[in-house]
Amino acid sequence: MSVIKGLRKIAPYVAGSQPKEKDIIKLNTNENAYGPSPKVAQALVDFDTDHLRKYSSLDQESLRKALGKQLEIDPDQIIIGNGSDDILSMAFLAFFNADEPILFPDMTYGFYKVWAELYHINYHEIPLNTRYEIETADYFAENGGIVLTNPNAPTGIYKPLDEVEEIIKANQDVVVIIDEAYINFGGQTALPLLQKYDNVFITRTFSKDAALAGLRVGYGIGSPRLMKVINAIKNSINPYNVNSIAEYLAVSAVESWDYYQENCQKIIKTRDWFSEKLRSFGFNVLDSKTNFILTESQDVSAEELFNYLQDKKIYVRYFPNVKRIKNYLRISIGTQAEMEKVVETIQELL
Amino acid sequence: MSVIKGLRKIAPYVAGSQPKEKDIIKLNTNENAYGPSPKVAQALVDFDTDHLRKYSSLDQESLRKALGKQLEIDPDQIIIGNGSDDILSMAFLAFFNADEPILFPDMTYGFYKVWAELYHINYHEIPLNTRYEIETADYFAENGGIVLTNPNAPTGIYKPLDEVEEIIKANQDVVVIIDEAYINFGGQTALPLLQKYDNVFITRTFSKDAALAGLRVGYGIGSPRLMKVINAIKNSINPYNVNSIAEYLAVSAVESWDYYQENCQKIIKTRDWFSEKLRSFGFNVLDSKTNFILTESQDVSAEELFNYLQDKKIYVRYFPNVKRIKNYLRISIGTQAEMEKVVETIQELL
Repeated sequence: MSVIKGLRKIAPYVAGSQPKEKDIIKLNTNENAYGPSPKVAQALVDFDTDHLRKYSSLDQESLRKALGKQLEIDPDQIIIGNGSDDILSMAFLAFFNADEPILFPDMTYGFYKVWAELYHINYHEIPLNTRYEIETADYFAENGGIVLTNPNAPTGIYKPLDEVEEIIKANQDVVVIIDEAYINFGGQTALPLLQKYDNVFITRTFSKDAALAGLRVGYGIGSPRLMKVINAIKNSINPYNVNSIAEYLAVSAVESWDYYQENCQKIIKTRDWFSEKLRSFGFNVLDSKTNFILTESQDVSAEELFNYLQDKKIYVRYFPNVKRIKNYLRISIGTQAEMEKVVETIQELL
Repeated sequence: MSVIKGLRKIAPYVAGSQPKEKDIIKLNTNENAYGPSPKVAQALVDFDTDHLRKYSSLDQESLRKALGKQLEIDPDQIIIGNGSDDILSMAFLAFFNADEPILFPDMTYGFYKVWAELYHINYHEIPLNTRYEIETADYFAENGGIVLTNPNAPTGIYKPLDEVEEIIKANQDVVVIIDEAYINFGGQTALPLLQKYDNVFITRTFSKDAALAGLRVGYGIGSPRLMKVINAIKNSINPYNVNSIAEYLAVSAVESWDYYQENCQKIIKTRDWFSEKLRSFGFNVLDSKTNFILTESQDVSAEELFNYLQDKKIYVRYFPNVKRIKNYLRISIGTQAEMEKVVETIQELL
């Protein structure tokens, strides 16, 4: 094969597969146990396909306004993306251009490392402490930026807001990204900190609490000086990055905030019930403020439990390559009925 | 204001605005004169919003299969993106990593320069010849890659396939991207060249011929060795880059190929009629194989004509900052009725 110059040398990174079978209990990607709101379904019916002839909006004004109203934030401090992955990828390009390494935990959303490598950003992974928590003082070191998921994944552990603020306060010379994908399952949002600090950038998604993982809509919130940079990046990559239907449906989702909050409460209740059940079986369950739990059995290896559950058509997530949690399983919280079935199935094994 | 390290130094690039008034004749962004196919409208009705609870597909297999069948290409040689801007942006990251400058015309899709600057890719803009054509021999210089739009925009001029092949043949040590956004309005596709050259990457969009600009779906086609690299890039940025509704509707669009071909023929007929009309008024009209024309009046300046038409609620595109065509207007081809109205309106001015 002849040489082609210019091909990027990049590991053939393969995204995790999604099971295609029907009639499974799918608890492997932290999708919402309940569906999109009836208003979202109605919006789809109302959408006129003829609108697709024209380009989608350049600035997603309708969605930014709806979110601004709901969150009591200036819509100009919001940017919309094709999922929060789109927002985070742009944020890495926009905010992490210093020479010093950016900092993030060794166990967190796996993509931070992937983006850092893709964009040649120097990074340093900071081990979680022995209780799998983010240790505040570890983030006082010289750095070129910080990115934290709060509550964290795959641990599910929430870092109290005053501790998050300590990190932001000590790092006002760099951008601190707080990824709040799971914030509506029991944590306290960092949004109020925007009034005190202009170096905070918060990312959110419609995939988890709004049950719209397949619609691919996420957003970022930050100070005007951060928005100026990330909007320039957006307009330099793919200005029409959100399709017309996605924007239209996402507006309905924002207008369904109460509906979604109710479902979040149901999921929280099921999560806490499920955690207690597993603990009663002798499992170690990390304290979760998300729609999943990370758990380890004292009796059965993660591999055995993973395979056993899969045989029973229950799909969960297993991290055989992450040393410190290779004996843990991450289990998304499904409906109460689904989780009762999971409990029953696990009980049969023990 | 205190210093924040790491912020990208980037010009506050602002994407072109879209008029928000109703009842205008919108001929400024090369949207399709006719709407999406009835099959696409039906697909929207059939789509179950509950599916949005789950993540969209990772590999867009259903759409790649539909396209593969239609284009007689192995689906594994196709990658789907959030518009062809997404595909092109990824292709720049994937294929243009050599030290030598990449080459593209000085007048072509404006984003090539934007991506090159964003990703720190060395580039060289090659002037079109005096007839606004891409000169084959200009692309025999040492380079790190080539990107051509064919037919070109904003000129509308098509470069015969044998000339495109000469460029590809002379540059087998780099990737040559052929952006075929407008190929179905009268040009001959470079797809057959994929059988002879493994350094060609062709990009396409559903925005123009399939009348789905607002749905944001584009695709790229290349050899297995190119697909390996660009898929790794996709999986490193945003693996769920196409939402479930977009994929579902785009499959219906592929199944509507005949419908769209018929509309393309209508647009071609209107374009040729409109070009002749303008020529009969003494306008210079470049020979177009796209759904727009680039034209210059001998009597009225582009600025005057642009403002006059806008007053009459006809929106076209004007390039006051591009020296060689600052007296030209780019006019998208609307329906026959719309273009008759445009002709009438222009006639009133002359």
